Parts: sequence; structure tokens; C-alpha cells
Amino acid sequence: MLRWSLESRDAQTRPLQDAVSNVEKHFGELCQIFAGYVRKTARLRDKADLLVTEVHAYAATETPNLRHGLKNFAEEFAKLQDYRQAEVERLEAKVVEPLKTYGTIVKMKRAETELQRATMDATRTSRHLEETIDNFEKQKIKDIKNIFSEFITIEMLFHGKALEVYTAAYQNIQKIDEEEDLEVFRSSLYPPDYSTRLDIVRANSKSPLQRSISAKCVTGTGQQIPTARIRKDQQDDEEDDEDDELEVTEEEN
Amino acid sequence: MLRWSLESRDAQTRPLQDAVSNVEKHFGELCQIFAGYVRKTARLRDKADLLVTEVHAYAATETPNLRHGLKNFAEEFAKLQDYRQAEVERLEAKVVEPLKTYGTIVKMKRAETELQRATMDATRTSRHLEETIDNFEKQKIKDIKNIFSEFITIEMLFHGKALEVYTAAYQNIQKIDEEEDLEVFRSSLYPPDYSTRLDIVRANSKSPLQRSISAKCVTGTGQQIPTARIRKDQQDDEEDDEDDELEVTEEEN
Repeated sequence: MLRWSLESRDAQTRPLQDAVSNVEKHFGELCQIFAGYVRKTARLRDKADLLVTEVHAYAATETPNLRHGLKNFAEEFAKLQDYRQAEVERLEAKVVEPLKTYGTIVKMKRAETELQRATMDATRTSRHLEETIDNFEKQKIKDIKNIFSEFITIEMLFHGKALEVYTAAYQNIQKIDEEEDLEVFRSSLYPPDYSTRLDIVRANSKSPLQRSISAKCVTGTGQQIPTARIRKDQQDDEEDDEDDELEVTEEEN
Repeated sequence: MLRWSLESRDAQTRPLQDAVSNVEKHFGELCQIFAGYVRKTARLRDKADLLVTEVHAYAATETPNLRHGLKNFAEEFAKLQDYRQAEVERLEAKVVEPLKTYGTIVKMKRAETELQRATMDATRTSRHLEETIDNFEKQKIKDIKNIFSEFITIEMLFHGKALEVYTAAYQNIQKIDEEEDLEVFRSSLYPPDYSTRLDIVRANSKSPLQRSISAKCVTGTGQQIPTARIRKDQQDDEEDDEDDELEVTEEEN
């Protein structure tokens, strides 16, 4: 009789334990991958920030229309990176954190089951367990819907802003007046203040270090490897690391 | 007379050399940064591919409505990664490659100037140089406008598709019927085919390896460091590497 009751109790607690284990496993993996996704988005933002800085630096050496167009582009593009930063922070707060919190909830549920197994008789356990399982399942479906909805909403907000910002940026590039700039350039070659203008250009094109950078981008076959779509079974952070090391080695050559 | 003519010749070739040096420097740096931007976009796509796989795996363990909703989300999200792959390939072909090609053009222009300096007399050099400089400048403005326009167009295409795809994905998540799934779940706990259903759940929640993954995401304070906006002066590939190493070390603990 005692033996039967113990078996029955185990059979009753198992559905909750299984449900909890399944959530623990998959929410944990989702958390890891979403965190990686946010991290890579942050890296993309860093590269975009570098682009903003370089476009400003290049624009400063150019004729008025080109300079103006490029500066405006850089400003719009910088705005987009602020939106990307907001995307990163929101994803961290509304997707990664809630998934992390689930680890704690799951631990508590586990303790709850253990406690019920240890202290209660079969009938009371059964009733209480049913309630616990039900609440857990209900909350889980609600939470998964909520987390994925947040993810999509945050992403859509960013993509919407991107379209808005790029529309303005496109106008800035398109309206660069090539003919007017050519006139400015031509007159800058043989005017009274010729040498002054020349000094400005020269000051911006001296560094031998920077020349070697451009040479690397010409020869750089290494650029193509990392963008090639890697096979699914190779995708992990270790792979990313090797990839980055490869890049740096090539860039240092 | 010869000395004056040599000095005059140098003064005439210098504007082209300066213009060429400036383009060599800045187009080289733009090329490097755009290539990095494409690389980081490819990494983001890799993480998103992982998310697709995991959402499918998790969906397979869930009740019908949740399973259906998650599977549909994963399919839409996978579609978006195909668009991201197209973005990566287009940026490589229309932005990075043309900037790389500039290195070759610049080298040819340099040789052209050297040749003119060595073989022509001052008057002919002057006329020819003026033409060369003019063509170079004209082509450069055209090319820079074209490259930036391509960049913006390719990015806008992707963001537009993203909005489209996420709109569909959002519907898939929103229409998950929680009540119906709860009924299915409840009836799966105490029905005639109870043990069969239980076995399915159990089969998907066994691995002790995967449990340790979820535990890491609960404690993982390391997640927050890489997403924090790093200062501009720290932004380079070495920084990225250190960052990745940090992550891996923490994940291995």
C-alpha cells in the first residue's frame, strides 16, 4: 500500500518535473542565442560608428558639395546607430532578461515539487500539483507569447526608423552637385590662393600608415571568407573567435 | 631655365598626386570599415540562423497552438535571414568590391603621373595633366555618389523586407490560442494515452549538458559587458577579439 502510494506520487509529480525540465532546457538555449544576437547587433553598431567617424574625416578633405552631402549622410547614419543602441538595450531588457529570470522561476518550481513530494500525502499532493502544473503551463505560454512579441516589436521599431533615416540619407547623397564641385576643384588648382588650398589637401594625405591600410583592402582576400554563409553545425562562438583571429592575423601582415 | 621648368613641372603634378593620395587613404579606410560592417552583418545572420533552429526544436516539444505559432515564426524569421544573406552579398559586390578596385585605379593614376613627369615637356605635361586631374576628380565624385547610393538602397531593401516579414511573424505569435493549449495540456496529464504523451515530453528534456547551458544564462553577468556601448577610441578588431575571448572564458566556467 505504501509502495503503491509512492509510485502513484512519483507518477503525479513527473509531469511537472518534465514540463519544468523542458522549459529549463529550451528557455536556457533561447536565452543564450538571443543574448548572442544582441551582442552581434552591438558589434554591428560599433562598426557603423566607425563608419560615421571615417565619413566625417573624408568629407572634411572634399569639395563643398561632396563634403556637405557626406557630412549629412554621416549625421543621418549616426542617428540610426542611436536607434540601434536603443534596440540593443530594449532587447536586453525585454527579451534576454525575462528569459534569464525563468532560470530562477524554474529553480523555485523544482523546490516546490520536492517539498510537496516530501511532506504531503498522495491526495493533497495530487490536488495541489494539478494547480501548480496548470499555473506553470499557463504562465509559460503567456510569457513565451510576450517575449517573442516584444522581440518582434523592438525589431520592427528599429527597421521602421532605418527606412525613415535612410530615405533622408539617400536625398543627401543624390543632391550632391557634381558639376559645381568640379568647378570649385578646377579653380582651386590654379588660383591666387593655390598653395593654401594645396596645403589643406596635403595635410590630409600624408600618413604612410594609412596608405598601408588601403593597400590591404586591395589585396585582402581574407574579406570574403567570413561573409560566406557557414554551415549550421559550425555555428558557435568558438567559430566566431577563430574567424576574428584570422582577420586580425591577416590585417597584421 | 631647366631648373625652373622642373620646379614648375613638380608644382603641376602635385595636385594630382595629392588628390590621388587623399583618395587612396580614405577609400582604403572606407573599404576596410564597410568590409567590417558586412562581416558583422554576416555574424548577426549566423546567430539568427541558430535562433531559427532552436525555435523549431523547442516548438516540437510544445502543445499544438504554441508549436504551430512558433514554427511559423521560425519560418518567417528564416526568410528574413535569406534577405540578410542577400544584403551581405550585395554589399560585398556593390560597395566593398568597387572600393577595393579603387586601389588598382589609384596605382595606375600614380604610374601615369610618373610617366608624364619623366617623358613630357612642361607645356604638354600641363595640358595632359589638367585633363587627367579633371577626369579623375569627375569619376571620383560619380563613384562616391554611386557607392553610397548603393549602400543605402541595399540597406533599405533589407529593412523594408524586415518590416514585411515581422508583420507576418507578429500575427503568428499573437494568434496562439492559450486556452485551447491549456486544455490539451490538462487532458494530456490524465488521459488513456497519458504515458505515451509523457514519453514524448521526457525525450525532449533529458540532456544534462543542456541543463548546464541554461544555468549559465541565469548567472551570466558576462552578457551585459559586450552590449555596452564601447568608447570610439576602443573600437577595433582587437577589442572585438578580447570581447569574444572574455565571453568564451565565462561560458566555459
